[in-house]
Amino acid sequence: MPVRPPALRPGDPVAVVAPASPPRTNDDYRAGLAQLHTFYDVRLAWAPGAERGYLSAPDADRATALHTAIRRPDIRALFCVRGGYGALRLLDHMRWPLVRQHPTLLVGYSDITALQLALYARAGWTSLSGPVVTEWANADDDTLAHVRDLAEGQCPLLDAGLTPLCTGTAQGPLLGGNLSVMSRLVGTPYAPRFQGSILCLEDVAEAPYRVDRMLSHLQHAGILRAVNGVVLGDFSVGTAPSPPTLSLADVFHDYLGDRPYPVATGLSYGHMLPRRTLPLGGRVTLDVTETTGRLRLLSPVVQ
Amino acid sequence: MPVRPPALRPGDPVAVVAPASPPRTNDDYRAGLAQLHTFYDVRLAWAPGAERGYLSAPDADRATALHTAIRRPDIRALFCVRGGYGALRLLDHMRWPLVRQHPTLLVGYSDITALQLALYARAGWTSLSGPVVTEWANADDDTLAHVRDLAEGQCPLLDAGLTPLCTGTAQGPLLGGNLSVMSRLVGTPYAPRFQGSILCLEDVAEAPYRVDRMLSHLQHAGILRAVNGVVLGDFSVGTAPSPPTLSLADVFHDYLGDRPYPVATGLSYGHMLPRRTLPLGGRVTLDVTETTGRLRLLSPVVQ
Repeated sequence: MPVRPPALRPGDPVAVVAPASPPRTNDDYRAGLAQLHTFYDVRLAWAPGAERGYLSAPDADRATALHTAIRRPDIRALFCVRGGYGALRLLDHMRWPLVRQHPTLLVGYSDITALQLALYARAGWTSLSGPVVTEWANADDDTLAHVRDLAEGQCPLLDAGLTPLCTGTAQGPLLGGNLSVMSRLVGTPYAPRFQGSILCLEDVAEAPYRVDRMLSHLQHAGILRAVNGVVLGDFSVGTAPSPPTLSLADVFHDYLGDRPYPVATGLSYGHMLPRRTLPLGGRVTLDVTETTGRLRLLSPVVQ
Repeated sequence: MPVRPPALRPGDPVAVVAPASPPRTNDDYRAGLAQLHTFYDVRLAWAPGAERGYLSAPDADRATALHTAIRRPDIRALFCVRGGYGALRLLDHMRWPLVRQHPTLLVGYSDITALQLALYARAGWTSLSGPVVTEWANADDDTLAHVRDLAEGQCPLLDAGLTPLCTGTAQGPLLGGNLSVMSRLVGTPYAPRFQGSILCLEDVAEAPYRVDRMLSHLQHAGILRAVNGVVLGDFSVGTAPSPPTLSLADVFHDYLGDRPYPVATGLSYGHMLPRRTLPLGGRVTLDVTETTGRLRLLSPVVQ
C-alpha cells in the first residue's frame, strides 16, 4: 500500500530543496519563492553558493539537505527548486530507513521524477508531479490552484478531453513522469513495480528516434506489457528532427497503438504552462472512449 | 562459453545487412560496398526502396533480411550498412533458435551494439564492433587491416598508450559498445551478464549530463560494481555544453575514478577514423599502470 504523507494546508510550514540543478537565474528563484510564500510558510530554503556544474551542490550535501528537511517535524512539504539533472545521483545516498519514518509531501517534476519514483519504490511515498519553485511566479492561477488542491487532499478531475489511441477503462496507481528520467531506473532497485499501474509520461526536446529508443527499452523490460493504461502528455520537440525521420505520432502508434488497455494522448502535462499536476502513486481511473478520454483521481494522495 | 563464428578469409562470400538506419547517401553506400568487394565476395546486399523514416525498412522486413542472411550456408559474415537507430526494435523479432544454429560473424558498431550484445546474451555469439559499410571507402588502411585481421582469427594488440584512471590488471570477456545503446538493454532479457567483463564504451555528441545520467544508470543497475575493468573510447561532444556544466572528465572521475579494478580512457574507439575494432565477447587483458594502459586480445573471436 502507498504511504500517504500528511495533507498540506494554507500557511503550513514547508521547505524548498534542490535535489537536482540550481535555478537558471536567481531572479526566477526569488520570484518563485515569494509566490510560494504567499501560500505557505517557507521555513527552510536552498541557497546558492555550493553549486557544482549542473548540480545545485555536491551529491552528499544535496542528500544531507534533503534528509534535514525530511526529518524536521514542523516541515509539512518539500518543494523542489528545479529539475535539470541530478536527482538520479542522489539515490545511493538516501537514508531509506529515515525516509520511511517521515513521510512528507514532495512536489516537483522532470528530473525530480527519479527521486519521486524511488521514494515510491523504496518508501511507498506518494508525491505530486507538479510545478518546481522557479515556475511558481510565472504559473497561471489554475495551475497553482490544482497543485494546492491536490496537496490539501482534494480529488479534482485530473484531465479530460484526452485524445484516444486505444479504448477501455482501467484503474491503478498513477506512475511515471519524465520518460528520459524514469527509463533510467529500469533494471535498478529504484524502479517501482509498474504492474497494474496507469503510466503517465512526458518529455521535452527529445528527437523521435530517442523517444522510440526509450519506448523500446520500456517494451523490452516488460513495462508496456505490465501496465493497465498509458497516458501521454506533452512531448514537444525542440528543433525539427532531421529527416529522414518517423514522427512522434508514428512512434506512439508503433508502441502503443494496439494495446489491450486504454491509451490516450493530449494530457495537459509536461514542460509547459498551464498544466496539470499528477498525483504519483495515487489511485486513478483512466476512461478512453472512441472520441475522448478522462483521467480521474479516486482518493487523495495525502491524509 | 561464447560461441565463436567461423573465421572470414579474403574472398569469402559475405552479406551486407541494414538492421538499423539506411545510409545517409547512396554514394557513401556504393563506395563502401565497392571497397568491401575488393576484400570479400558480397553476395547479398541491402538495397534502398523500403525505408521507413530512420529505419532501413519496416521491422519485420529487417528481421527477415537478417534471418535470410544468417541462414544461408555460403555466407561467412554479415557487414552492417550503418548504425543510426533501429537495431533495438529488432530484438523481439529475432528467431533465436535459428540464430543459435548458424553462428556468423557480424561487423558493425554504434546502434548495432544493441544487436551485438543481444546476440551475445541470447545466442553466445562473439562479434566485431568495427566499421560499418558506409565507412569502408573513407577508412584508412590500418583501420581496415585491423578489422580484417580480427575477422581472420588473428590476435593483434587491440590498443596501447591508454590514459590511466585506476591501475590494475584484469581479464574478462570484452563487452560494451555505444553507451546510449547498451544502456537501453539494462533490465531487459537482451542484456549480457556483465559480471567479470571488461566494459568498453564510446559515445558521440552526448552532453555531459546525459553521459552522467547513463553512468548513473549503470551504477544503480550494479554493472559498474560487477565488471572487472573499464576502458573508455571517444566521447566527442558535438557542440559545447551549455554552462553551468561538469566536464566529461569530471563525470568519468565521479563514476570511475575510485574503482578497485583497472580503468583507462583514450581507447582509439568511437565515431572517428582511424580507430580500432573491438572483439565483443572475446577474452581480453586490460593492464593499467600509473603511466599507461594496454588492451590485448587473448584468443581469436572466430574459429
